Amino acid sequence: MFALRSLFRSAHIRYAAASQFHATSNCSGAKVAVVLSGCGVYDGTEIHEASAILVHLSRGGAEVQMFAPDVSQMHVIDHGKGQPAEKESRNVLSESARIARGNITDLAKLNVSNHDAVIFPGGFGAAKNLSTFAVDGKDCKVNKEVERILKDFHKAGKPIGLCCISPVLAAKVLPGVDVTVGHEEEEGGKWPYAGTTQAITALGAKHTVKEVTEAHVDKKNKVVTTPAFMCETKLHLIFDGIGAMVKDVLKLSGK
Amino acid sequence: MFALRSLFRSAHIRYAAASQFHATSNCSGAKVAVVLSGCGVYDGTEIHEASAILVHLSRGGAEVQMFAPDVSQMHVIDHGKGQPAEKESRNVLSESARIARGNITDLAKLNVSNHDAVIFPGGFGAAKNLSTFAVDGKDCKVNKEVERILKDFHKAGKPIGLCCISPVLAAKVLPGVDVTVGHEEEEGGKWPYAGTTQAITALGAKHTVKEVTEAHVDKKNKVVTTPAFMCETKLHLIFDGIGAMVKDVLKLSGK
Repeated sequence: MFALRSLFRSAHIRYAAASQFHATSNCSGAKVAVVLSGCGVYDGTEIHEASAILVHLSRGGAEVQMFAPDVSQMHVIDHGKGQPAEKESRNVLSESARIARGNITDLAKLNVSNHDAVIFPGGFGAAKNLSTFAVDGKDCKVNKEVERILKDFHKAGKPIGLCCISPVLAAKVLPGVDVTVGHEEEEGGKWPYAGTTQAITALGAKHTVKEVTEAHVDKKNKVVTTPAFMCETKLHLIFDGIGAMVKDVLKLSGK
Repeated sequence: MFALRSLFRSAHIRYAAASQFHATSNCSGAKVAVVLSGCGVYDGTEIHEASAILVHLSRGGAEVQMFAPDVSQMHVIDHGKGQPAEKESRNVLSESARIARGNITDLAKLNVSNHDAVIFPGGFGAAKNLSTFAVDGKDCKVNKEVERILKDFHKAGKPIGLCCISPVLAAKVLPGVDVTVGHEEEEGGKWPYAGTTQAITALGAKHTVKEVTEAHVDKKNKVVTTPAFMCETKLHLIFDGIGAMVKDVLKLSGK
């Protein structure tokens, strides 16, 4: 019984000490920052996109550090009911820490000089907490730290990976960038967010059509994108498309 | 602008309609129930274990339906601070819906006759919300629906997959079951929860040592287990171990 209580106590201690995603002396690859926006597709980071990015970065030998802004979520969606939980408030950094198993840093501390690349998973958090795209479309504002980071990595010639709805962040901040969010027509519900492509061109960016298993590389800007959950399809195809994106990001990092 | 507002509105409508994980006419494989316990390693389902299970089930052609009990979490852990959020309360079904993208059913409605197999990811939710193992160890109680489901699948000769800490559920409910949670010594922190193996044997079950990339099959009881995050290691190795578990579960299902 002592051992079991000890297990529980040690679990509490470990709440802030899990290390699976962080720097270890065994890593020799690229140092990659991953920027989260909460935890759950409808008000935060799309969980399976984040997890796929982390699995592929792990397999690619990358050293990962996760970040999120220390701000309140735009709102909280009860994912079971599909409705906003009116009286509830959650913090983007604290919720993102669920995906990061506690190992996460305030986005304000992300310094481009410490990383070889940056990746943004999707989910409505990118359009609600990292920007106002979900409500303002092409007139959206982007979180200042997110804007700073995108500009800093771009200026330093370090690759930027984005998936799902996140490419709108690059479209807003990096003039003339060439990205994909998949197909440009809904095609009977296969691409339910196809209207996003109009917003991307309205922002002055270029949109390139790609399949869900593909990544699109804007070589000039070192921006790599993949449709992910913009497509209604099987999860392993989304996982593979994210794998292609991560592979291209690591390749462009030169590490 | 109309298109963008329409995008946002349609997103709200889609909150309860995403279908990536559910039955489609294209599926011809096993029908697998996945039982969640919240969303976040320290008070719910371990997110990356759940996602890995779903990716491997998708690749294996399975038709997935997710379930969680409609009960309050034992407590809420602020994963950023590593501390309980004292005044907060969250519902296991609603939080699990974040992983399920809204497509989730009350565990009370899970009927063994509709499924060929059942899989339980880990995370402290299994030891806090699906059972009282985290506080009571070998004297734990198991949620009545979880107990019913484990017994029903076992009686029907349908395979049960579990990973991380979840094998304790089988150890408590199925007498003499043979499971793995990895190694039996901490080995300098590589297996920080190694003490769990003592509880498993105290419960009358058998423990078999396995590596993180392996699954252990109890052929007699059709119970398949893998260590997952019981091991401090790289995420892609945990992903691969879960892949081995899912493959064995699908094989035992005979579909």
